[in-house]
Amino acid sequence: MSSPITSTSSLPIREQPSIFQQVGLLKVVEDSYGGVKVDVEEPMDSDVYVPLLRASMSQWRQQGVKGVWIKLPIKLANLVEPTVKEGFRYHHAESDYLMLVYWIPETPDTLPANASHTVGIGAFVMNDNREVLVVQEKNGAFRDKDVWKFPTGVANQGEDIWTAAIREVKEETDIDTEFVEILAFSQTHMKFCGKSDLFFVCMLRPLSLDINKQDSEIKAAQWMPTEEYMAQPYINKHESFKYVAKICSSKSRNHYSGLCSVPTMSSSGKKSFTYFNKLQL
Amino acid sequence: MSSPITSTSSLPIREQPSIFQQVGLLKVVEDSYGGVKVDVEEPMDSDVYVPLLRASMSQWRQQGVKGVWIKLPIKLANLVEPTVKEGFRYHHAESDYLMLVYWIPETPDTLPANASHTVGIGAFVMNDNREVLVVQEKNGAFRDKDVWKFPTGVANQGEDIWTAAIREVKEETDIDTEFVEILAFSQTHMKFCGKSDLFFVCMLRPLSLDINKQDSEIKAAQWMPTEEYMAQPYINKHESFKYVAKICSSKSRNHYSGLCSVPTMSSSGKKSFTYFNKLQL
Repeated sequence: MSSPITSTSSLPIREQPSIFQQVGLLKVVEDSYGGVKVDVEEPMDSDVYVPLLRASMSQWRQQGVKGVWIKLPIKLANLVEPTVKEGFRYHHAESDYLMLVYWIPETPDTLPANASHTVGIGAFVMNDNREVLVVQEKNGAFRDKDVWKFPTGVANQGEDIWTAAIREVKEETDIDTEFVEILAFSQTHMKFCGKSDLFFVCMLRPLSLDINKQDSEIKAAQWMPTEEYMAQPYINKHESFKYVAKICSSKSRNHYSGLCSVPTMSSSGKKSFTYFNKLQL
Repeated sequence: MSSPITSTSSLPIREQPSIFQQVGLLKVVEDSYGGVKVDVEEPMDSDVYVPLLRASMSQWRQQGVKGVWIKLPIKLANLVEPTVKEGFRYHHAESDYLMLVYWIPETPDTLPANASHTVGIGAFVMNDNREVLVVQEKNGAFRDKDVWKFPTGVANQGEDIWTAAIREVKEETDIDTEFVEILAFSQTHMKFCGKSDLFFVCMLRPLSLDINKQDSEIKAAQWMPTEEYMAQPYINKHESFKYVAKICSSKSRNHYSGLCSVPTMSSSGKKSFTYFNKLQL
């Protein structure tokens, strides 16, 4: 980790040299949108930090910087209040850091949005006897409800949808699977703290059959005849469950095609997966 | 806004009454997962806040509370450091508040995950002459590249995918459209600050034809013959663009079916949209 203080900014100086270059400034990395990012890593007193921040802000203004990002690790929580007092707002936070931001220009800000969605998966796993893999949960919305449901879960940060589905089935039931298709998905808003959720129903093919349920979250797990699953009052009472059951039933008779996944490269060179209807391409 | 201080907790007291009920405690709302949430609204000095928090924590421990959530508006940034010092970690932040959390039990925490994804849309809009609506952008990754691309954008918090597509097309080109289908989507990781992105290609039907481009973001907009769009070197060089072009071309000849959207109600009674292959159901 390097010191966050430097005697000159790493930005090209577009204006006349100013007095602020003589004093200490916060060390920055430029982004590709005319902004700068400060990664404060070492403990610092606010008495030291505030003059540095003010001098840096003056220089950034002169240089025509747009967005200023300051990332404060949680161990530097002492600098949150001083940063806010200088006019910064919160952008986002993770367990171990808080990101603050300041938009310098007079024009409306074009800063990237905060993440808005969690990603959930439900796994439709059917064996050769047309039985589906179902579980009863110990916690959450289905606790004490006598409902047999698909294994479900939340994708981890950085995890692909199809990978998350395979992982959750393995964790909850010990069944190995391979990904077939995304059959459908739902978007629901205001799930938690105003955030939305995208829930993907994934069809997986079982590669093993012996269930060994996880104890902490799962009350029971079994292979259940499709008809029995679909006849559950809860499934029929809830529209979204009914749709999913109908789609899965249709798929199980080869009357439905969802979206397969292929590895692709995004235009910025990042590995990604694209999901589309292969059958019809 | 009510005072965050109350003389008794709103939680049912499962243990013997303790001395902590005599002193001031932070006012809480219980969640359905055995947790409590504190919404600090009024300005408070840390000298007042810290004893309240400590007394409250003791009571919550006795009561078997699991997760403790503290929501601090940005105007109360002075309480961030004291809360962290009491062992809380960050959970998430929006522009105007920071959410901190503490998991009391010895067991691993089952707190809901922070939002992990932004949602982007690209709009495939084709007129009766088989021309597609394309734009050139002033900023971002496509600035100074001579590429004609679909209108794209980011879904606002709480906005449905199909609505976002219609809005972005209207904003960038003034063309009115109606939603047809989601043709494909991509999931890309590490887009911004470790977060992932889900990008949905939406087919929209134009309801108007006269382009009136937005000036701040859009350099140019036009209806372009499909073949010309697809012949662009950039499209052919990038795998994900090539897939999308192929899918859209196939769709334009009625050889492809994507996912339509139907309004549904989630099991928790929240309005949602489910996307599935209607043609095959």
